[in-house]
Amino acid sequence: MFDKETYIRRRSELKKLVKNGLIILFGNNESPCNFPNNGYYPFRQDSSFLYYFGQNRDGLVGVIDVDNDTETLVGNDIDIEDIVWYGSVDSVKDLAEQVGVAHSEPMKTLKTICNEALRQHRKIHFLPPYRYDIKLQILDLLGIHPVQQKESASMELIMAVIKMRSCKEQQEIEELERAAVIGHKMHTTAMRLTKPGVTEKFIGGQIDGIANSYGAMVSFPTIFSQHGEIMHGNPTMAVLQSGRLALCDAGAETINNYCSDNTRTYPVNGKFSQRQLEIYSIVEACHDHALQIAKPGIKWYDVHMSVCRLMTDRLKELGLMKGDTEEAVKAGAHAMFLPHGLGHMMGMDVHDMEALDQRYVGYDEEIQPSDQFGTNALRLGRRLQEGFVVTDEPGIYFIPALIDDWKASGHCKEFINFDLLETYKDFGGIRIEDDLLITKDGCRFIGKDRIPYHPAEIEEFMSKN
Amino acid sequence: MFDKETYIRRRSELKKLVKNGLIILFGNNESPCNFPNNGYYPFRQDSSFLYYFGQNRDGLVGVIDVDNDTETLVGNDIDIEDIVWYGSVDSVKDLAEQVGVAHSEPMKTLKTICNEALRQHRKIHFLPPYRYDIKLQILDLLGIHPVQQKESASMELIMAVIKMRSCKEQQEIEELERAAVIGHKMHTTAMRLTKPGVTEKFIGGQIDGIANSYGAMVSFPTIFSQHGEIMHGNPTMAVLQSGRLALCDAGAETINNYCSDNTRTYPVNGKFSQRQLEIYSIVEACHDHALQIAKPGIKWYDVHMSVCRLMTDRLKELGLMKGDTEEAVKAGAHAMFLPHGLGHMMGMDVHDMEALDQRYVGYDEEIQPSDQFGTNALRLGRRLQEGFVVTDEPGIYFIPALIDDWKASGHCKEFINFDLLETYKDFGGIRIEDDLLITKDGCRFIGKDRIPYHPAEIEEFMSKN
Repeated sequence: MFDKETYIRRRSELKKLVKNGLIILFGNNESPCNFPNNGYYPFRQDSSFLYYFGQNRDGLVGVIDVDNDTETLVGNDIDIEDIVWYGSVDSVKDLAEQVGVAHSEPMKTLKTICNEALRQHRKIHFLPPYRYDIKLQILDLLGIHPVQQKESASMELIMAVIKMRSCKEQQEIEELERAAVIGHKMHTTAMRLTKPGVTEKFIGGQIDGIANSYGAMVSFPTIFSQHGEIMHGNPTMAVLQSGRLALCDAGAETINNYCSDNTRTYPVNGKFSQRQLEIYSIVEACHDHALQIAKPGIKWYDVHMSVCRLMTDRLKELGLMKGDTEEAVKAGAHAMFLPHGLGHMMGMDVHDMEALDQRYVGYDEEIQPSDQFGTNALRLGRRLQEGFVVTDEPGIYFIPALIDDWKASGHCKEFINFDLLETYKDFGGIRIEDDLLITKDGCRFIGKDRIPYHPAEIEEFMSKN
Repeated sequence: MFDKETYIRRRSELKKLVKNGLIILFGNNESPCNFPNNGYYPFRQDSSFLYYFGQNRDGLVGVIDVDNDTETLVGNDIDIEDIVWYGSVDSVKDLAEQVGVAHSEPMKTLKTICNEALRQHRKIHFLPPYRYDIKLQILDLLGIHPVQQKESASMELIMAVIKMRSCKEQQEIEELERAAVIGHKMHTTAMRLTKPGVTEKFIGGQIDGIANSYGAMVSFPTIFSQHGEIMHGNPTMAVLQSGRLALCDAGAETINNYCSDNTRTYPVNGKFSQRQLEIYSIVEACHDHALQIAKPGIKWYDVHMSVCRLMTDRLKELGLMKGDTEEAVKAGAHAMFLPHGLGHMMGMDVHDMEALDQRYVGYDEEIQPSDQFGTNALRLGRRLQEGFVVTDEPGIYFIPALIDDWKASGHCKEFINFDLLETYKDFGGIRIEDDLLITKDGCRFIGKDRIPYHPAEIEEFMSKN
């Protein structure tokens, strides 16, 4: 938690942006896993609730009455039986005080507050819910069915929250740096443990353990796979094979819930083959290229497209692509190799604010999301600003099902050499990812020590460990 | 997954027990953590769905039409964009075939199936939902509001599932043994890493990592705390202090989702003090006592009460309790020290079938749950049967808030020596837990190697590691 003044200042700014009405920020509840009592997943607070109310406990709701300039923390106090099971905790009144909120109320009062506002035909602002428990809460409080809740969410509130959370404060950057330290430990551990004969799950589990040991938990489900061509390849019981590449995409969340997100790809046996090096060097060049051109004022869409053109040029040199680069990228031919976006915003959520809708988080009046395969997975398109934190994560994948699909339909056949591509079906995939802070006149990495990155560094690290 | 015949046999028996109507077994969906896309918790299938339909994938529903003797697996196939992100997976038709189910349908058909059955006034059996997504599904399919769903759930189905899942099959016992092997590794790792200066979170995280490395995940949120007096004390950033006891209550789930659940308590500095040994030896005696008397035909409630009497006798020897043992236990005075039950059923859920309601899982016409503090937390009371798996987990805790509470009210003052108890407020708590399989004429531990248990064993283990 940051200091009390941080939350007071943020709520004050929020009120100015939203202008009027009643703002309800729902905190998360416990999320049942396979049974109700102690069968919970680890608690994760809602990030916008954390941003404005700071308290990392289940069963809380923050209410900001903009018209009357009052703030209330809603939640139930615990009793002696709860104390036996979960230990003593502060009262809701104390929790409110800690973040500069003057009022506290029990949960049953929330219904009264909502009824009163509805009766007065006041605007009730809430964010689009992403958890089913909150959807039920909104149904019961406001009578809006879950399928209509996204469209009933407050545009004023969404835009205000996005405006504020997009540019990271200094203390947030410091937290992101802390997350990067844990992420570094996760990735170097995975690299150290990788060798033929070990299961993917063993390594994935070990790095999950590091996230849990030093922070809150993983910032997203760990990807560790010798099938890097599967974008979200969760670790399986498959045994790592010499000759394959292992792709590790993983990150940590600090105790204060700020994230890291990095990806490295390296040979299971510690030594890149010539073919692997050829593809790796293209991804590396794309990664470096983004770093060179990202700065305030430039559209992230343009950075993405510039990377796609570079990738296409280089794949043409290898003979995997052909034809005019501009036209190939325009047609989306590069998405055979890079079917996702170059990067996304990162902060308290690893896909920052994704719950608020990528159309508003990543796009604006000037630039709208594309529906072309590949580019439709680009979560951020708008102009970069100082204080944005974005991931830089190009990749090249050889996806047998996609190759077969395009080959059969003839899609982009003027830009792709399917005969040569056929011989890469056993390749897998490569992704390299680091997190960038947009600075006044450019960008810099988040994280003090860089996870081994260049092939020579990786080979040296793996031979020594 | 077990073989196809297992699931065919189980569904066949279920149909006989439920007799008529339409059975709907909802599989779980992905559970959003902090945003919708890839912001998920690790997937955990519903255990009853697993028991009858075996498939460990999100978005499936099993439908058994008892009247017409047909079985259908409902779920949507994935498309090429899904394959890019998540890899190729079997079609729903294939998934159905793998578990001996003849029919498959897309998810939209479920509404038609339900409407048809409602129109015909047929009984629709479903289990009480514990996840909010399923509550919403039931609301939309059957028009039952979440607050009424528990009472609308099918008693016939609940009782049939409990009857079948309570007695473990041989192949289930083998899975539980596999879980115990992972649990052993978790606990010995925690014991090895425990020393002054390390954070609770570090050790908790490391053993989470073992669960994730060798199995599916933890079987419940890991408890690792130097404040054992908090029953569910999640690991904090607090640094372990010499002189305190560390309590570790943790378990693993195998890839096939069978659980382990053990607790050990040991000195942070590796050496028990005299006072710690005195309390430990009582918990040890209680633990052994349960093991000696548990067998088919005996009520687990009686085992629990017998343990409470032994504990009271021994606490009287120390001067912490006084008066007549029978009367003290009848008054619930022992619950000052043991405010929870001796154990619970275990299987695919670590609190097995808890979602089906403890009144039916753990109790029956012969014996009903108590509402006395302490005994109200006993999840199992009914007569043991061969094939039951139960935890044996007595504990003694010194809970400052509870001591103050009872002392102030004078509750059980004729049985408790509050003056002496006051001097134990800095003690913490001790729990010892192992998992028992009820055999033909007694019981045995699950797990090949026992986690160090006797104080001498623990001290030797900790001095060597």
